[in-house]
Amino acid sequence: MTLRLHIENSRLSSPLAHIDNKHVERALERNPATGRELEVTIGNDGDILDSALLTADLMISSWPPRTGLRDRAPRLRWIQTTSAGVDHLLPFDWLPADIMLTNNSGPHGAKCEEFCLMALVALANRLPSFIDQQRGHLWSSIFTVPIKGKCCVIVGFGDLGQAAGRACKKLDVRVSAITRSGNPEALADAVLPSHRIDEALPEADFVIVTAPLTPATRNIISRERLALLPVTAGLVNVSRSPLVDYSALIEMLNQGRLAGAILDVHEPEPLPPDSDLWATRNLVVTPHVSCDDPRYADMLLDSWFENFTRLLHGQPLRNLVDRVRGY
Amino acid sequence: MTLRLHIENSRLSSPLAHIDNKHVERALERNPATGRELEVTIGNDGDILDSALLTADLMISSWPPRTGLRDRAPRLRWIQTTSAGVDHLLPFDWLPADIMLTNNSGPHGAKCEEFCLMALVALANRLPSFIDQQRGHLWSSIFTVPIKGKCCVIVGFGDLGQAAGRACKKLDVRVSAITRSGNPEALADAVLPSHRIDEALPEADFVIVTAPLTPATRNIISRERLALLPVTAGLVNVSRSPLVDYSALIEMLNQGRLAGAILDVHEPEPLPPDSDLWATRNLVVTPHVSCDDPRYADMLLDSWFENFTRLLHGQPLRNLVDRVRGY
Repeated sequence: MTLRLHIENSRLSSPLAHIDNKHVERALERNPATGRELEVTIGNDGDILDSALLTADLMISSWPPRTGLRDRAPRLRWIQTTSAGVDHLLPFDWLPADIMLTNNSGPHGAKCEEFCLMALVALANRLPSFIDQQRGHLWSSIFTVPIKGKCCVIVGFGDLGQAAGRACKKLDVRVSAITRSGNPEALADAVLPSHRIDEALPEADFVIVTAPLTPATRNIISRERLALLPVTAGLVNVSRSPLVDYSALIEMLNQGRLAGAILDVHEPEPLPPDSDLWATRNLVVTPHVSCDDPRYADMLLDSWFENFTRLLHGQPLRNLVDRVRGY
Repeated sequence: MTLRLHIENSRLSSPLAHIDNKHVERALERNPATGRELEVTIGNDGDILDSALLTADLMISSWPPRTGLRDRAPRLRWIQTTSAGVDHLLPFDWLPADIMLTNNSGPHGAKCEEFCLMALVALANRLPSFIDQQRGHLWSSIFTVPIKGKCCVIVGFGDLGQAAGRACKKLDVRVSAITRSGNPEALADAVLPSHRIDEALPEADFVIVTAPLTPATRNIISRERLALLPVTAGLVNVSRSPLVDYSALIEMLNQGRLAGAILDVHEPEPLPPDSDLWATRNLVVTPHVSCDDPRYADMLLDSWFENFTRLLHGQPLRNLVDRVRGY
């Protein structure tokens, strides 16, 4: 029996996640056996959405329709998002109980590990200060000890957090992971449940924020928690902006109460020209590139086909979003 | 028999290399046996130089007197520089044949490896472009593939070059080393003798310059050789500025004919405020910090004591400068 997959592109998503005919053709060539079971339609910003939904069994979209979905898509049973984060779809009251939602966790690991490696060494070596000095044509050497043995608090320990953990291990940096459960993690020297995060922050040389954005994690790095960090600490955010109080962070960086920060995620994106972040002292702004590979659409389709094979064999899907936890 | 060591500090040297009484006292405590054989004097910018030289057997100084040295220092037999590079003392016509000269090669490795690791990932991830964009409050994402499998040409493969090589291996980057002899090196996937460097440059994703500055290496990365690099390549210099044609590099970076550069060494230092380097596109300027640890003076004295023990036991000294090769 042939299944119908509708791929819905949205201009609200990253251009990297835009899937076109070529991506689909190549993915079908790489997956000939399961590809034979599929009929694929591609829509952009709703152009053929309603007619496609009438017969779609499966959907790839980061912005699925959230009103009357069951009626509009009577056969739909699985939605795959193109992003790892699904915070933009919360709460899940729009999602019928018999439709599975999977996120695109996984393909961000290699890039995220590299970005965290760079960010850790850049912060340890005071690169953000040197960039500020360069802007002012100023020369003032700051010498730093090797990074080995320093401590990194990693907030969240899913795919991105573990990538950050691998970066730490390559640098002989100790990992203090903050997770929901506080259960042991192979890559972490210590794990604390999130309600005990305040115990970890005063010991941090670095904080890397990787947790998904949910009502429970919003503002987890609040003004009060930023104040717990040593003045020599540096902060990295590769997940979502609202996890960290950026207003407080800007103040602390400008006052020299933190050594530096590297922020890859912002709200809104693109960051507007009048944002205070651009000119904050000891802060490096990157345009949401930390965890993304230009081959993103191909990688997404490959992992989708793996999951599709599971579906055909009656096995449980990977990356199923938990409706209660919200990620 | 007690030997007399004169330590001569110079304001021409890095402040890190300034050795004071406290450094000496701590080093003597760490080396009690050999310390008993020593009498130490410390001078600054020539204040007690002539009287100290009259009786000195040993000297630590990056700026030893280069006129009439044999007459002024009749017992002197060993000079230790505080720097790894000795290019500022070339040619060695001032150095009596019976005075040994050793450089401070070695303690720069750990920091150099970290800096190269950061520089490679920063170039691979287009960080210099993002820094330029930040200066102009501009948001434009550039997505890049993981660094694994890319190729780094390392020019010179001594202590710093091997540190760069270790950084490459941590990132799964292939190493193409350029050395005087072209003999195999454990850390290098390929080694070419320096006269064949033109064969390596067109394949380079990155070039890291680590060679000592000598008449043979001056301008080794010339305008013509920079033109051999792919437009996607990035360049790092952690050794000495005159190894690379910075004027040509500035032109190429501003014209987008190279992806980026990270330059830690300059001439003169401090880099003057009107230097064109400060505002060159896709260029990060750091103030000669790549390979230096704030514990530099202690590390220097420890490695000096190791060598001193060799001297007392009649063993050959490490880090002896070759008068012909000039490093």
